[in-house]
Amino acid sequence: MPAAGAVAQSPPPIALERWGSFHVGGREVVVTGQPVREVLFSPGGVPARVDPNGTYLMGGMYAQYMIPANPRGQAPMLLWHGGGLTGVTWETTPDGREGWQHFFLRRGWPIYVSDAVERGRAGWTQIPEQTGGQALTLTVDNPFERFRIGAGPGSYLRQQVLPGNQFPADRESYLNFVRQVVPRFTTTDALALDAYLALLDRVGPSVVVAHSQAGLFGWRAAQERPDKVRALVLVEPATIGDPAKVAALRNIPVLMIYGDYIAQDARWPAIRANGVRFAEAVRAAGGSVDVVDLPERGIRGNSHMIMMDRNSDEVAGLVQEWLAARGLWR
Amino acid sequence: MPAAGAVAQSPPPIALERWGSFHVGGREVVVTGQPVREVLFSPGGVPARVDPNGTYLMGGMYAQYMIPANPRGQAPMLLWHGGGLTGVTWETTPDGREGWQHFFLRRGWPIYVSDAVERGRAGWTQIPEQTGGQALTLTVDNPFERFRIGAGPGSYLRQQVLPGNQFPADRESYLNFVRQVVPRFTTTDALALDAYLALLDRVGPSVVVAHSQAGLFGWRAAQERPDKVRALVLVEPATIGDPAKVAALRNIPVLMIYGDYIAQDARWPAIRANGVRFAEAVRAAGGSVDVVDLPERGIRGNSHMIMMDRNSDEVAGLVQEWLAARGLWR
Repeated sequence: MPAAGAVAQSPPPIALERWGSFHVGGREVVVTGQPVREVLFSPGGVPARVDPNGTYLMGGMYAQYMIPANPRGQAPMLLWHGGGLTGVTWETTPDGREGWQHFFLRRGWPIYVSDAVERGRAGWTQIPEQTGGQALTLTVDNPFERFRIGAGPGSYLRQQVLPGNQFPADRESYLNFVRQVVPRFTTTDALALDAYLALLDRVGPSVVVAHSQAGLFGWRAAQERPDKVRALVLVEPATIGDPAKVAALRNIPVLMIYGDYIAQDARWPAIRANGVRFAEAVRAAGGSVDVVDLPERGIRGNSHMIMMDRNSDEVAGLVQEWLAARGLWR
Repeated sequence: MPAAGAVAQSPPPIALERWGSFHVGGREVVVTGQPVREVLFSPGGVPARVDPNGTYLMGGMYAQYMIPANPRGQAPMLLWHGGGLTGVTWETTPDGREGWQHFFLRRGWPIYVSDAVERGRAGWTQIPEQTGGQALTLTVDNPFERFRIGAGPGSYLRQQVLPGNQFPADRESYLNFVRQVVPRFTTTDALALDAYLALLDRVGPSVVVAHSQAGLFGWRAAQERPDKVRALVLVEPATIGDPAKVAALRNIPVLMIYGDYIAQDARWPAIRANGVRFAEAVRAAGGSVDVVDLPERGIRGNSHMIMMDRNSDEVAGLVQEWLAARGLWR
């Protein structure tokens, strides 16, 4: 039995005012000229004639909300996952602890966990034209070596974890994380952003917490809907926003968080430097951006998957304090 | 703003003892001989070298649980969705009402909503070998005409709903349902069954509620793990179990539910007849199977998506009574 199922601690029950899910965004696209297929959906079933020509919906996304009975967050909190992943990022950690979704819900934040376009319950390639390319699927060792869990190329085979790493890298927990990884297209960013804007338009002014690839969507969504983003928390953002629109961010407090082992990584020094440079441009335009390198706060050993690391609650606490200090939690 | 977001009623808060999610099942597969790719994951990001050769995990599935603080269900309830869909089937209905997940959770059932192999948060084709075929994506009109919402072929264009149909077929609600549809492979049944067995092994003896395609998985899982299935509720099962193993079902109470408009459909008379014939074989082997045709109970107008129909609570109530009568709810 995988370790992820174990619930070691027994925190108190929580009262939910309401919970549920919805899809949002997307558009209709017409496909023509394709042959009709005869499909046996299930062995032993009855064949059906399926005409692939017609109208499709594409580019929608999924969101699931849990609203606490006694909210203390002054806005909904939207948790946006990174590339090749889904909203599962924020749920139970791969080693079975409560994740950030639990942490913030327990503190009274209305929580929206979503699956971006093409991933998870959003569905993918509702028509072939949606994705415009081949999906990338990762081998077991890829995230281990690219997400600063192991010590670079070849480290998975050697099972060589970076010294002091906080990611639960025992075999069973790590494989539970790999089970969460989904195929990724690299051609759907515009669709994903559109759907995130539709999500913001629907939920209203929110705190956006975005990880990795979603750093792009967090920045860009805040630039397109500055009135809908009360604060932006970027956890190891992989990219920056639109340099031509930094002024749009001037009234939105931003927190950027980076983990450990960046200097010794092949790609993360450049990724972080790009982020810090963009933060400076936002500040120059009158904005407020706090960049936190966790090791400088004495919080060491964090991988790229900070919300899954063993000290995930400690880092969530830092985010919580930052939000409270900005009047967004009472 | 889509109607799915509206929460018309204000039922009381619910206390959760715990909630979370996990992945379960699957196996490792090795891929060799593929070219290495240089991938720019995000525009403006830093390129990464991705080697597709190596070990993959495939065939796992996702489950999300919500455990009420004061359980009255005598076993966990597992909600298994149908083909081309995900666990979203059981959540908020397309017109924004509480779904079966809400209904049974509010009555004290520990609820596990899952995404089967290849769908939703389970991820799909972790390697190409997983699916062994092309995914089938449905046009907007297909479920309308195939799930007994509209009056057969061409009815979507005519917006001709079957008289008295309970499915929320107004344009916005219907499109919210279509947004839930995900691509479907027709070659992954064996993988899906394996993962469902792993789910049962992990959660333990459960009440299994299965819809449509999952009828196959419900029957077969009960035959493979008769000690892990306390009761089987099959909502319009698309297929039957293994005729050679009916005896394995003799101690498991089974409820089969069919909706309206079956006689006039092109495929459902045969699908239902197959199901009823299998039920008779199970009874002949000493089993107990109740077949309920809703119209014969005076419950009319149900489509194939009974848990989304306007009278979804009424049918859930019938399931609830049936389970309580078998001592599974107190």
